[in-house]
This record gives sequence, C-alpha cells and structure tokens, in this order.
Amino acid sequence: MKIVTEAIHHESLEQVEQYADVIHIGARNMQNFSLLKVAGRCGKPVLLKRGISATVQELLLSAEYLLAEGNHDVILCERGVRGFDPATRNLFDLTAIPVVHKLSHLPIIADPSHGTGLRDKVIPMARAAIAAGADGIMVEVHPNPEEALSDGAQSLFPDQFAQLMREVRIIAEAIGRRVAEPAAVGA
Amino acid sequence: MKIVTEAIHHESLEQVEQYADVIHIGARNMQNFSLLKVAGRCGKPVLLKRGISATVQELLLSAEYLLAEGNHDVILCERGVRGFDPATRNLFDLTAIPVVHKLSHLPIIADPSHGTGLRDKVIPMARAAIAAGADGIMVEVHPNPEEALSDGAQSLFPDQFAQLMREVRIIAEAIGRRVAEPAAVGA
Amino acid sequence: MKIVTEAIHHESLEQVEQYADVIHIGARNMQNFSLLKVAGRCGKPVLLKRGISATVQELLLSAEYLLAEGNHDVILCERGVRGFDPATRNLFDLTAIPVVHKLSHLPIIADPSHGTGLRDKVIPMARAAIAAGADGIMVEVHPNPEEALSDGAQSLFPDQFAQLMREVRIIAEAIGRRVAEPAAVGA
Amino acid sequence: MKIVTEAIHHESLEQVEQYADVIHIGARNMQNFSLLKVAGRCGKPVLLKRGISATVQELLLSAEYLLAEGNHDVILCERGVRGFDPATRNLFDLTAIPVVHKLSHLPIIADPSHGTGLRDKVIPMARAAIAAGADGIMVEVHPNPEEALSDGAQSLFPDQFAQLMREVRIIAEAIGRRVAEPAAVGA
Repeated sequence: MKIVTEAIHHESLEQVEQYADVIHIGARNMQNFSLLKVAGRCGKPVLLKRGISATVQELLLSAEYLLAEGNHDVILCERGVRGFDPATRNLFDLTAIPVVHKLSHLPIIADPSHGTGLRDKVIPMARAAIAAGADGIMVEVHPNPEEALSDGAQSLFPDQFAQLMREVRIIAEAIGRRVAEPAAVGA
Repeated sequence: MKIVTEAIHHESLEQVEQYADVIHIGARNMQNFSLLKVAGRCGKPVLLKRGISATVQELLLSAEYLLAEGNHDVILCERGVRGFDPATRNLFDLTAIPVVHKLSHLPIIADPSHGTGLRDKVIPMARAAIAAGADGIMVEVHPNPEEALSDGAQSLFPDQFAQLMREVRIIAEAIGRRVAEPAAVGA
Repeated sequence: MKIVTEAIHHESLEQVEQYADVIHIGARNMQNFSLLKVAGRCGKPVLLKRGISATVQELLLSAEYLLAEGNHDVILCERGVRGFDPATRNLFDLTAIPVVHKLSHLPIIADPSHGTGLRDKVIPMARAAIAAGADGIMVEVHPNPEEALSDGAQSLFPDQFAQLMREVRIIAEAIGRRVAEPAAVGA
Repeated sequence: MKIVTEAIHHESLEQVEQYADVIHIGARNMQNFSLLKVAGRCGKPVLLKRGISATVQELLLSAEYLLAEGNHDVILCERGVRGFDPATRNLFDLTAIPVVHKLSHLPIIADPSHGTGLRDKVIPMARAAIAAGADGIMVEVHPNPEEALSDGAQSLFPDQFAQLMREVRIIAEAIGRRVAEPAAVGA
C-alpha cells in the first residue's frame, strides 16, 4: 500500500515526507516554484498535477523545477482544465496524454474524478484515459460517498471501483499494456 | 458505402440531398437555425457537429430544430472545442459523450481528426472515444496526405486506419459493443 | 433614424435589404460564408459581429468575404466572447478594439449589452469601450425592460441611456473624438 | 514613493515585509492559501492579483483568507485571464471591475501591462480601466524597455507614461473621480 499526500507548503512537505510514499503537488500549486524546489530536493517521488489552465508546455516546465533539483521520480497528472461548459466540473483534456508522451519521457496518469466531477462519468472517462495511453489512473473511492469530507459527488462506490478495474484491465491489454495492483491512498 | 456531405446553405442542401446518404451540418453552422430547419425537413439522416464553443446543452437544443421538423435520424458529433493550449488544434472534450448519453437518446460519435488536428494523436484519441462510449468515430484517411486539398496534417495513412480499426474493435468488445464495417465518405 | 436589422438567411436578407439601413450579421452567423457573400453583394452597410469564440483574425477574415464581393461599408462589432466565469453572460474583450485598429482600416464598435448581459454593467463598460477607442457603441434600451420580448435583463431604462450619453460624450472628447447623435434601431 | 514587492514564499514574505510598503501576491499564487495566511498576518497592505483563470468569486474567496487573519488593507487586481486568442498575452476582463464593486467593498485596480502584454495596447486599455471604474492602475514603465530584465515588450517609455497620466486624469474627472500622484514601484 502506498500513501500519497498533498503538500501545500514547505513545512508540511518536510513533515509529510516522513510518512508518505509519494508527494502530491496539487493543481493550484503547479506554479508554486518555491514549493517545487523543496519537493525536488526530497527523496520521494512527486506527483505533479496540471494547473487549472496550464498548457502542456507549462506543465513540463514546472516539472523541470523538480528535475533540476535532482528528483527524477516525477509523475505528471491530467486532471481537467477550466472550461466553459457547466455540465462538468472541469474539461478533461485526454489528448494531453499523447502530447506529453511525444514531448517527454515522464509518465503521465489521469484523474477522471477531478477531471469530470461526476461519479457516473468516472468509469467511462477512466477507460478512455487508459485507451489514450495513460500510464495510470487516480480515482476517488469511498465506502459511503454521501459522508465524504470532500469530493463525495465524484467518489466511486467500492463495487464500481471493482467494475472499473475489470474494464480497465481489458482495455490496457487491448493496447499492449498491463495493469498493476491498485495502491490505496490517503486524501 | 455511404456518402456524407456537408451542407452549408439551403440551395446546396437541396442538391446534396439527391446524392448523399447523410447530411453533415458543420460546427460553424450548428446554430444556423434556418439551415437546421431545412435539414429537418429533408428525408436523410443528419450528422450535427458540436459548435466550436457550444455547450452540450446548446448542441442538444440545436438538435431539437431537426427533431421538431420531423427528422428523427440525428447523429451528434464531438469534434473538439476551442481551447487555450496551442499544442492541439482543438480541445477534444470526450466527456461530452457520457454527458449526452445521460441527457438524450440520440447517438453521438467522435471526430478525433478535427478534435486533435494531429495525425499521430488520432489513433489514441479514437481509441479513447470508443472507450468513453462513443457510438461511432469519423476519421480522415488519405492515400497521400501531403497532397490532400484540406486537413492533410490530420489525415491517417491507409495502413494506420487498418491498425486503428483493429484496436477499436478490441476496445469496443471490452465494453460490450461491436463495430460495424466502416463507411467510406466524401469530403 | 436608422434601422439595423439582423439577417439570418438569404431570403430574409433580400427582404430586409428593402427596409433596413444597415444589415446586421449576428455572432452565430459570423462564419456563415454563404450569408456573408449575399450580404457582400447587397447595397447596404453591414454590421458584422464577432463570433462567440472567434479570434480577431477570424473576424477580419470573415469581413474579407464582404469586402471581396465589393461591399466596403463594413462595421465590426465586439460583443463578448465565451468565458469561464458565470458572473457575466460573456467575457467582453475590449482589447479587441485597439487590436483591430492596428490590423485593419475597418471601424469597430462595441456592444456592452451582450458583452456583459447585465443592465448595471452596461454604463461602465460602454464608457470603457469609448475610452479604449471604439468607433461607436450599440446598447439595448427599453421603456419597460421587464416586458421586453428578449434581452430585458441587459436593457437600459431611457434615463440610464441619457446618463450614458452624457458620460460617453465627455470621455470621447477626453481622447479627441466626438459623439454623433444616436441612431434608434430595431431589434 | 511606495515600494510594492512580490512575495512568493513565507520566508521571503517575512523579509520583504521589512522593506516594502505593499505586499504583492501574484496571479500564480492567488490560491496559495498558506502564503495568503502569512500575508494576512503581516502589517502591510496586500495587493492580490486575480489568478490566470480564476472567477471573480474565487478572487473574493482568496481575499477572505487575508481578511480572516485580520488584514483589512486588501487591494484586488484584474490582470487578464487566459484566453484563446493569441493576439494578446491575456484576455483583459475589465467587466470584473464593476462586478467586484457590486459584490465587495474592496478596491480593485487594473494592470493593463500584463492584461494585454503589448506596449501599444497599454494606453487605450488603461484609459478603459479607469472609465470602467477601476480604483487605480498599475503599469510597467522602463527608460529602456529593450534592456528590461522582464516584460520589456509591455513596458511604456517614460513619455508614454506621462501621456497616459494626462488622459487618465481627464477620464477620471469625467466620471467624478480624482487621480492621486503615481507611486513608483519595484519589480
């Protein structure tokens, strides 16, 4: 089991580093360059989310702050950008996945929970992310989403997650890839 | 073999109707309500593309113009919306597919050629569209894309199209669907 | 008094031409190229509104369709583009005014009624448009906005319009320009 | 003369506070909540810039972090949002000014240098900001813009700044306001 924890400032990052397996830099901090430098010096892998209206180039330039400090374990994450259609929470830009794969050697995963904001869109869009070539997905699951402290409306029930994993596995194989066991992660 | 032809004004629509199997209303005409009314009275299926910055609700409201005139053979099409990232021609909004499926009984297909504008992104995004539940895809293919009169940069070579169809077929089956034989279509 | 009437298809354009002093092409028809060609051949000035997510370059290219048919009396109009903030109906892009003035000899006016969609924002934004160098403004006024058939929420009361004209006159003079008498126009 | 300095992390904020008259929180840090909390506890006025795709509501909610810590000297700043038209660096959303004035008691200024990114657009858009009701403007001026370390392309020459101040003064008076002497500020 892996622990992924969001770091939002220097001090918390230093604490978090003792317990977490992966440091998560959220979309709102993608261009918090002083935080990126500290994360670049920690000894843990970093999950860097695309900013809410960042171009792919800006995402890669933020990743350079981590790489330049010597941390090469960087995972990028597409989580939707700001759009104009209120039908979804964000506009999930899955084309960013093959765009990143062409420009960089870094892996990129997708977060259909934030990318759509709607539980019933998570399964089809997680499948789509894998079919587009994502190196992983990150989905919110809760045994009782109505009581979730945050993001309940976009959290899957455990049996939906099991169904998702079955479908994702088949699609991954269809494009010549293989799914590892899921990691459980903290908020 | 089916012929799909884009109609851009009333007179051409009446001519086109004699030869085409499907009438295509392009993104720039999604809210050309007088054209929609004429198309709604023709006896052919209509392929209605999402406008360049139309919400899904606006797309469905445009479809109502066709339905209200008695034409129930309406196919919607996601083809990318205007985005801020110059990395791709448009921002391909695949979440529109499950959004339409929840709000309407109408089928929706995806156009990854216009949705991305880049040949090497067409295959992964066509796969993603099918995985998201699209009822079909529409891709540009050309025996010699460099000499294409338009859209060469986003046209597949024939052998890429054959590869795409193989991959799409497997993904469709993975989610319990089946791919019919492709239709060849005019510009 | 001048009559400005929106033309939405060829036949109506031919009828409208007999009565109107100015032909208005709405935002949804900015790229309806067959309509632009007909309007380019009519003998009346044409008011061409910027499409809902058109770049300034695309607006100028649409104007070329009118100019190419021999109609040189073309007035461009900034009316807001699609934005992400629900606080206003559209995102009023006043920088388009000096951008057009640098790239083209064509006059450009601004429509703060559609640009904002909110009555109490019309006066400040009309002033701003004049200060940015707009060659005119187009505002909706209604003696009883609650009963307006459309766009009531963005229509000024007549006394607000009188106040607006006073303020606009002073700002125009401050930047070395002069305001002509307003034209009353149809819907 | 006032010194405005951009704070980008906690430590620098504490140093900056000793020398600066105003603490500037840049667009990329509008939602850096830990930085906002520290700035809310410093004894200096804070200039809070709108994030690159922040709604007005999100800007006001970020300001609450400052107010909640007891710092009531908060100045908001419109500096352009991310748009789709490459003609300008950002899409300068001047309607945000009357929107903020309706929702909040906080003053809001405008930054036409970042809002447009183009020197020759700064004067018309600064005038427009004042006409829209801005409580101030912030413009970049450089004696030799070609040698500026950053933002040279959007910096005014000193004589352009003098012309701007003359025009702005007249417009401010036209709408019943008065311009104070400009403050010189650091980068």
